[in-house]
Amino acid sequence: MSKATIKQVAAEANVSTATVSRVLNDSGYVSAEVKSRVFGAIAKMNYQPSAIARSLKQDRTYMIGIIVPDISNPYFMGISRGIEDVVGPEGFQLMFCSAGEVPEKEARLLQLLHEKRVDVIVLATSGGNVATINALIDNGQRMLLIDRRLEASETAMESDTAADSDTATDSDTTNDSESVTAIPPALDLVAEDNVRIAYELTKALLEDGHVRIGVVNGPTRVSTGRDRLEGVLRAMKEYGAEDRLLLYSGDFSTEGGIRAVRQFLGEPVKPTAIVSLNNKMSLGVLLELVQSGLRIPGDMAVASFGEVEAGRLLKEPGLYYVDQRPYEMGQRAGELVLRLLRGEGGEREPASEIFHHEVMRIR
Amino acid sequence: MSKATIKQVAAEANVSTATVSRVLNDSGYVSAEVKSRVFGAIAKMNYQPSAIARSLKQDRTYMIGIIVPDISNPYFMGISRGIEDVVGPEGFQLMFCSAGEVPEKEARLLQLLHEKRVDVIVLATSGGNVATINALIDNGQRMLLIDRRLEASETAMESDTAADSDTATDSDTTNDSESVTAIPPALDLVAEDNVRIAYELTKALLEDGHVRIGVVNGPTRVSTGRDRLEGVLRAMKEYGAEDRLLLYSGDFSTEGGIRAVRQFLGEPVKPTAIVSLNNKMSLGVLLELVQSGLRIPGDMAVASFGEVEAGRLLKEPGLYYVDQRPYEMGQRAGELVLRLLRGEGGEREPASEIFHHEVMRIR
Repeated sequence: MSKATIKQVAAEANVSTATVSRVLNDSGYVSAEVKSRVFGAIAKMNYQPSAIARSLKQDRTYMIGIIVPDISNPYFMGISRGIEDVVGPEGFQLMFCSAGEVPEKEARLLQLLHEKRVDVIVLATSGGNVATINALIDNGQRMLLIDRRLEASETAMESDTAADSDTATDSDTTNDSESVTAIPPALDLVAEDNVRIAYELTKALLEDGHVRIGVVNGPTRVSTGRDRLEGVLRAMKEYGAEDRLLLYSGDFSTEGGIRAVRQFLGEPVKPTAIVSLNNKMSLGVLLELVQSGLRIPGDMAVASFGEVEAGRLLKEPGLYYVDQRPYEMGQRAGELVLRLLRGEGGEREPASEIFHHEVMRIR
Repeated sequence: MSKATIKQVAAEANVSTATVSRVLNDSGYVSAEVKSRVFGAIAKMNYQPSAIARSLKQDRTYMIGIIVPDISNPYFMGISRGIEDVVGPEGFQLMFCSAGEVPEKEARLLQLLHEKRVDVIVLATSGGNVATINALIDNGQRMLLIDRRLEASETAMESDTAADSDTATDSDTTNDSESVTAIPPALDLVAEDNVRIAYELTKALLEDGHVRIGVVNGPTRVSTGRDRLEGVLRAMKEYGAEDRLLLYSGDFSTEGGIRAVRQFLGEPVKPTAIVSLNNKMSLGVLLELVQSGLRIPGDMAVASFGEVEAGRLLKEPGLYYVDQRPYEMGQRAGELVLRLLRGEGGEREPASEIFHHEVMRIR
C-alpha cells in the first residue's frame, strides 16, 4: 500500500486536516471520540509513522517552558520578560517552573515539559541533570540555556524521572538510567561574564584598601557559583590577600545573606568589606548589617553582584554593584528561541552570548 | 455488543492497561505508533465514550496551573510556595503563568492550561474573564481563586480565546462568544479582608494627625483594588477628611509608586502622609521619597498594604505596614486544591477563607 497523505486521513475520519494535526500534536482540545476516529483512520489508511514524525516535527504547541532555580528572583523574571516580549508577538506563550536549586526537582520538571511537548525549554539549571537533558535532546527536544552552563564534570544522577507513578513498561520513555559522567550537549547559551565581573567587583574593594573581605557565594554545583568564586580568588591573589578571605557558602537566597553576615560578625577578626555574589544574598547582607546597627560603607563596605533596588534606601551612598541587564539578556534569548524554531535541520555552532557589566557605585 | 473493559482494550492493542490510561489522559510520553494501536483497539472493541469520559475524570495529569497577575511579586510567589509545599508531597507539580494584569492575556492562558489538562487552575484574576471561566468550568475544569474575587459586574469580553490559530471547526472547543454580563461561578476563594485592612491602615495615619493623605491605589477592575480603596474612603469619611484625599490610580507596580510620589509632590498642597495599597507600589513610594531627599516619616509618613522588606533599610523607623501572610494563604489554598481533587461529585458550599492582618510599625 502506498503512503497515505494527511488529507486522505482527514477525509477517512471525516474531520479537517487541522484536526488531524491537532490530534497528532496534542495541541488544542479534541474530543476523545474524534481522536478515536482520527487514530482509527491513521491505522486503516496506513499513514506512516515517518510521516507522523514529520508532522510532529513541523507543528507547534506554541508553548515555551522556562525552568529557573528561583522564580521569585527579579533577575530571572527580568530575563523572562525579555523572552516574552520577543516570542509573544510570534504567538508563543510562556510557562514557568521553579526548581528551587534542587536538581531532582529540575529533572522532574524537564520531563514534564517535554511530555507536554513545549516547543522549546529555556533552562537556568540547578545542576546535575546532563544525562536527562541528553536523553530529551536525543528525543527531539529543543533547549536553550540561560545564566548557567551545563557542566561535564557533574555526576549524572538520573534514575526514573517520570512524574507519573503510573509508568508503563511497553512505551518508549526517556528515563534510561545512566550512572556514568555525562558529556553535556552543545546548546545555545545566554549568560554573564561571571569570572571577570566578580574579579572587578572584588578589585573595587581591594583598591579601596580592604584586604579582610567576607565572600558570600552561591552553590559551586552550578557554573555561576563556581565562576564568581574564581573571579574573587583571582583578584584576592593579585593583591596578595587570598589568606585574608572569609568564605560563606550560601544558596543564592536572602536568608543566606543574613546568615553570612551573622557568621562574619562572629569572627575574631571581622572583615571590613563583604562581596556578595547574587542580588538576593546582597539584600540579606544589607538587611542584617542595618539590623546590627552597622553603617554601610562606614563600618562595612559592600559590593553586590547584581543590583539591589533597596540599596538606594540606605542612609549613606557608596554601595558597589554591577547592574545586570536581565531584560536585554532575555531579549537575546528570545531571538535565539525563534532561531531554534526556524532553523531545524541545519547544523550550526551553538551561540554563546556572554554579557559583561561594569562595576557601579551608588552616589 | 456489550461494553469493553480497559483490560480488553489493552489486550487487543498488546499494551498494558497503564498505557491505555496514559493514552486516554495524554499523560506521559507514548509513541504515536502505540497511540494508534490503542485508539484502533478502542474503536474495534467498542470501548464506550462514556467509559472514556469516566476514565478521563478519574485520572490525573498531576499538574496544577497557577495564573497570577505578576509573577515577580514576592506576595504571589509566597502563596505559590505555600501551595507547592502542600500539594508537592502528593505528587503534583506547579506551572506558573503571568497575565501581567491584562485580561486578554489571562483568557489565553486559561484556555492553554485547560487544553493541557491541568488538574486544577489556581487563579489570581486580572479581571474581565467570567464568561471564559464559566465555559471552562462547564467543561469540567476545576478552579480555585486566590487573592481576588470574580466580579459579576464585569463586562464579558471573550471572543475567540484559542491560542492556536490552527483552530478546527469540527471539534468541540470552548470559545463560544458571549457579549452579555456573566454571573461568576461559585468557586473556593482564599483572600484577604481588604476593606478592613485598608481601613485600619488609613486610620493609623489619621490617628497620628494626618488629614491630607495621598492614596496610591491599584486598578479598580479587580476586587483588591476596589475593596482597598473602599476601606481607605471609609476611614477618611469617619474622620471627616474625605475631601482632603489625593488619589493616584496605579497598576500594582513599583513604577506606579514612583509616579504617584511625583504627582503628589507636584500638588499645590502636598500630602503629609501616603497610604500605598500593595507592596510593589510601596517600594516605589519609598525609593522616590528617598530620591527626593525626604525623610520617612519626618517629612512624609507612609503606610503600606503589604510588607516591604527594604523598609528596614530606611534611616528612621516608623513605617506603617500590614504583614501579609502569603505562605499561610498558599498552604490553605493547597489544602483546598487537594479537597477539590478528592471531592468530585459531591455538592458543597465553596470555601471562602479570608485572612485578616494587624497594622504594624517598623521600630
